[in-house]
Amino acid sequence: MFRTHTCGSLTAKNIGETVTLAGWVQKIRNKGFVIWVDLRDRYGITQLVFDTERTDASVLENAKSLGREFVVQIKGTVIERESKNLLMPTGEIELLVSELTLLNASKTPPFTIEDKTDGGEDLRMKYRYLDIRRNPVKQNLIFRSQVAMAVRNYLSGEGFIEIETPYLIKSTPEGARDFVVPSRMNEGQFYALPQSPQTFKQLLMVGGMDKYFQIVRCFRDEDLRADRQPEFTQIDCEMAFVEQEDILNAFEGLTRHILEHTKGVELEKFPRMTYDQAMRKYGNDKPDIRFGMAFGELTEVAQGFGFPVFDGQELVVGIAVPNGAEMTRKEIDELTEWVKRSQVGAKGLVWVRYQADGTLKSSVDKFYNTETLQKWAEKTAAKTGDMILIMAGNADKTRSQLSDLRMELAKRLGLRNPEIFAPLWVVDFPLLEWDEESGRYHAMHHPFTSPKPEDIPMLETNPGKVRANAYDLVLNGNEIGGGSIRIHDKSTQQRMFKLLGFSDEQAKAQFGFLMDAFEYGAPPHGGIAFGFDRLVSILGGQETIRDFIAFPKNNSGRDIMIDAPATISEEQLDELNIALTLKVKK
Amino acid sequence: MFRTHTCGSLTAKNIGETVTLAGWVQKIRNKGFVIWVDLRDRYGITQLVFDTERTDASVLENAKSLGREFVVQIKGTVIERESKNLLMPTGEIELLVSELTLLNASKTPPFTIEDKTDGGEDLRMKYRYLDIRRNPVKQNLIFRSQVAMAVRNYLSGEGFIEIETPYLIKSTPEGARDFVVPSRMNEGQFYALPQSPQTFKQLLMVGGMDKYFQIVRCFRDEDLRADRQPEFTQIDCEMAFVEQEDILNAFEGLTRHILEHTKGVELEKFPRMTYDQAMRKYGNDKPDIRFGMAFGELTEVAQGFGFPVFDGQELVVGIAVPNGAEMTRKEIDELTEWVKRSQVGAKGLVWVRYQADGTLKSSVDKFYNTETLQKWAEKTAAKTGDMILIMAGNADKTRSQLSDLRMELAKRLGLRNPEIFAPLWVVDFPLLEWDEESGRYHAMHHPFTSPKPEDIPMLETNPGKVRANAYDLVLNGNEIGGGSIRIHDKSTQQRMFKLLGFSDEQAKAQFGFLMDAFEYGAPPHGGIAFGFDRLVSILGGQETIRDFIAFPKNNSGRDIMIDAPATISEEQLDELNIALTLKVKK
Repeated sequence: MFRTHTCGSLTAKNIGETVTLAGWVQKIRNKGFVIWVDLRDRYGITQLVFDTERTDASVLENAKSLGREFVVQIKGTVIERESKNLLMPTGEIELLVSELTLLNASKTPPFTIEDKTDGGEDLRMKYRYLDIRRNPVKQNLIFRSQVAMAVRNYLSGEGFIEIETPYLIKSTPEGARDFVVPSRMNEGQFYALPQSPQTFKQLLMVGGMDKYFQIVRCFRDEDLRADRQPEFTQIDCEMAFVEQEDILNAFEGLTRHILEHTKGVELEKFPRMTYDQAMRKYGNDKPDIRFGMAFGELTEVAQGFGFPVFDGQELVVGIAVPNGAEMTRKEIDELTEWVKRSQVGAKGLVWVRYQADGTLKSSVDKFYNTETLQKWAEKTAAKTGDMILIMAGNADKTRSQLSDLRMELAKRLGLRNPEIFAPLWVVDFPLLEWDEESGRYHAMHHPFTSPKPEDIPMLETNPGKVRANAYDLVLNGNEIGGGSIRIHDKSTQQRMFKLLGFSDEQAKAQFGFLMDAFEYGAPPHGGIAFGFDRLVSILGGQETIRDFIAFPKNNSGRDIMIDAPATISEEQLDELNIALTLKVKK
Repeated sequence: MFRTHTCGSLTAKNIGETVTLAGWVQKIRNKGFVIWVDLRDRYGITQLVFDTERTDASVLENAKSLGREFVVQIKGTVIERESKNLLMPTGEIELLVSELTLLNASKTPPFTIEDKTDGGEDLRMKYRYLDIRRNPVKQNLIFRSQVAMAVRNYLSGEGFIEIETPYLIKSTPEGARDFVVPSRMNEGQFYALPQSPQTFKQLLMVGGMDKYFQIVRCFRDEDLRADRQPEFTQIDCEMAFVEQEDILNAFEGLTRHILEHTKGVELEKFPRMTYDQAMRKYGNDKPDIRFGMAFGELTEVAQGFGFPVFDGQELVVGIAVPNGAEMTRKEIDELTEWVKRSQVGAKGLVWVRYQADGTLKSSVDKFYNTETLQKWAEKTAAKTGDMILIMAGNADKTRSQLSDLRMELAKRLGLRNPEIFAPLWVVDFPLLEWDEESGRYHAMHHPFTSPKPEDIPMLETNPGKVRANAYDLVLNGNEIGGGSIRIHDKSTQQRMFKLLGFSDEQAKAQFGFLMDAFEYGAPPHGGIAFGFDRLVSILGGQETIRDFIAFPKNNSGRDIMIDAPATISEEQLDELNIALTLKVKK
């Protein structure tokens, strides 16, 4: 062992002891007659001291040759520090060094290894191993492992069995694009990497393993938007002999346990909302309910007054911005520009100031009297001092635009407090959504989701209206989990595939094994999957998953540290019976 | 919830209670006036009873239509069983059914869902979800998850952090063949699936994460021998600021914890042996030390007597078969044929019977007197009643052949008791091994293994003699873990790559990131990886890993349940900029 203690463990209690430490040189202050070195390891920082009076000349000389990030082993005596730093655990002591062994030198690091670094994103990614030495990244990774342990401890305690499902599976056309793996032994054939272990966990239910979970890597070959990764981690769960209510309760228990054991936060029973309510009230299927600004529908009380922007529109809807009445015209104009950007796409904003004296002043005073504006204030739950902002147009689009505005305002007003945790179940999702591009229905969740029994008669007559036994768990405006009760009989599954445009042959070729399984005593079952990267980053009070992944990829799907992907040899291609058909010469 | 209790939970204490169960029909006995049904779930079996006297006629009628593996929900009253079965936990009670709901029917299963099934390997794999319902497979999977939890609990308790490393990495020519993944976004380039997270865990050490572990999937595109899988699971571990001794102690602790917590077995301190000793004493670098039959080297006491089979050979070596003196000539002939098979490749066997009366009788009495044979008995530690079997020839080959014979005899004599656990550290492995085919040295462990400091001077002069700080953990004749102290300085790593035939350019292209990292303060580090599938199967008292994997692949790397790998669409190939170059028309 290279050390007797860690750099975070020595306190005043150890004064007088001879100890050995090993770590990295964080900082050196050389005053000539005395040198202080901050020595860092995973556990903290300990101050070393060398001086002309007490330190052997050769040791002092060696200390002078140290540089940042050198790795050293030192032996010394714990002494009381003259100027104590009570902010750090080791701040009352320092180590008078008697022996110094250089374990490895270091070139000058390309960025500072401090909590706030001067390194840009690309540099930090290329030298990720140096970035990981920094406290914020290190603590994120440690936190992630703690969350994983909390998940495993809770679920194991509840009788769930962690079962590993295969990574080399079969490509299916439904859903996102698969990563594929050419098989050398099965010429011309490919494995696919799983987008999720969905069918396998269902087969485990058919196999009688009534409580399954797995913390598992999943893969999607999508064009990467900001903060998406081609490989990501899921907490994947499934239960048999349960109804939706049982699943909500089981995983509310898990979420509560995680928050309690990793953040010390105790939560009340999670509120629930239907998809329909969420869309009407927040314009969003993952509403952030840490703050108000719920939508007030004004269509009935805003149309028929001759205001052409509102009349004839499908929906007029507003929100009350808390303490927004003081907003200047300039600020309103800026917000109006913000909602008109192509990313939001609204046509404009109507505003109503609910002034401190109780009077109402609006941009549409020409069309509406106080009494009407008062009704708007009621519908949007505005209080004196608030500002009401209103949009109108196609219902779906307007709701989405107002939701964008609501989130932007919350951000500007500091209402998205990362220390507050507001979970929410959104239930009764539609089974299908219409896809304009392909001109057919797509599964909103996935093709294995069960329609609500009472809606099954509408499957062929009014598919868009059919609700599913599907649910999302939302935390602070992010979907952290989603799941459903699954279909467990062959005929419903066949109807579903047909509805999604599969021919019988296609359905059989892709999912024949699952439909076969349904004929051998498949129990009722359902489950949920949590996006683990996202969950950890929200719990960690941040919204960038990359900071919680040890070795993330960039937006082109590249690992710039190891420089992957990369070309492979002709020999490898040959063995796999494939050839490149490059379209672009590099 | 579909049930109030499980099929394993009701006992005499519950008599009189009204309960609801859900599960599968295991067995039906229809006596006309009374029907008994065994209802099964993950937790056990409960006997249901329907009879003409006490059961509603329509319920009884429904019960008659049940078949094997039907899924039902039943409500009933717990009553005392007339003929109790004290061998099962629920054997004192039965359930008088009042309500019966059919949840799903089942076709007749293709094999019996019993502990001993009539299903062949292929059928069981195709319907793996039915195989998993069988107790032995189900219990193996549950056991596997228990072992994983024990590993995580122990290592977390010891301050290890579980960190997920990427699955989409870069192909390297060293080691086994990689599975590759074409990148759509990076035209003409490929990811590779990791054969192990080796370089990433070393980078974590450079990153200061001084205790890392991960239970992680690894991939090797090898021609599959029996009981190899293209994807397999490792317990991957690494520590910084440690020496070999620290690692052996840390993971001896882990192994002891696993055995205690999953098998209730407490072990003494693990014995250790050098590679050299293991080869001389057992002809094998993973000796099974549950039994004796250690090698006795007879070269000095067997040559020079005019026996041409021994004279001039590099090695004469024998083992004493306990209580083997009674072996018949026929049995000896059969053993001789066994060692002459091409799989073993020996030329023959010389035998010496150490008879009960203390006299010695051999197949070579013409050449050797009793005094000499007595020396052989001493060298092989033979006792009266034993049989000494002897081989001669090239040292390496003969040791390997005698090792095969030793293991075969142990099997025949029932000495490989799965309930006994005999761990062993084998240390001081050679750094390199000569590869006849490529005419160069290969890394015995991997290119990152550190030579022993005292052997470094021989690196270029006598590479084959250089020992490594490498070690294997052997359990019952199987290598369950292996690791090494790693190189942590750039120059040694460069020398190593050169020795292995890498040009500077190749080394830089493949492992430049690692050698760069070594220049920024890499600490001394080392680690180990356990083959999790193998470990679990040995702990489970079996030697076939396939029985401990939920969805294994067959020897052609196929998942015959989902029928993967499979062809993919032209569109997919196109997007990936690859084409098939099939050599064999299907």
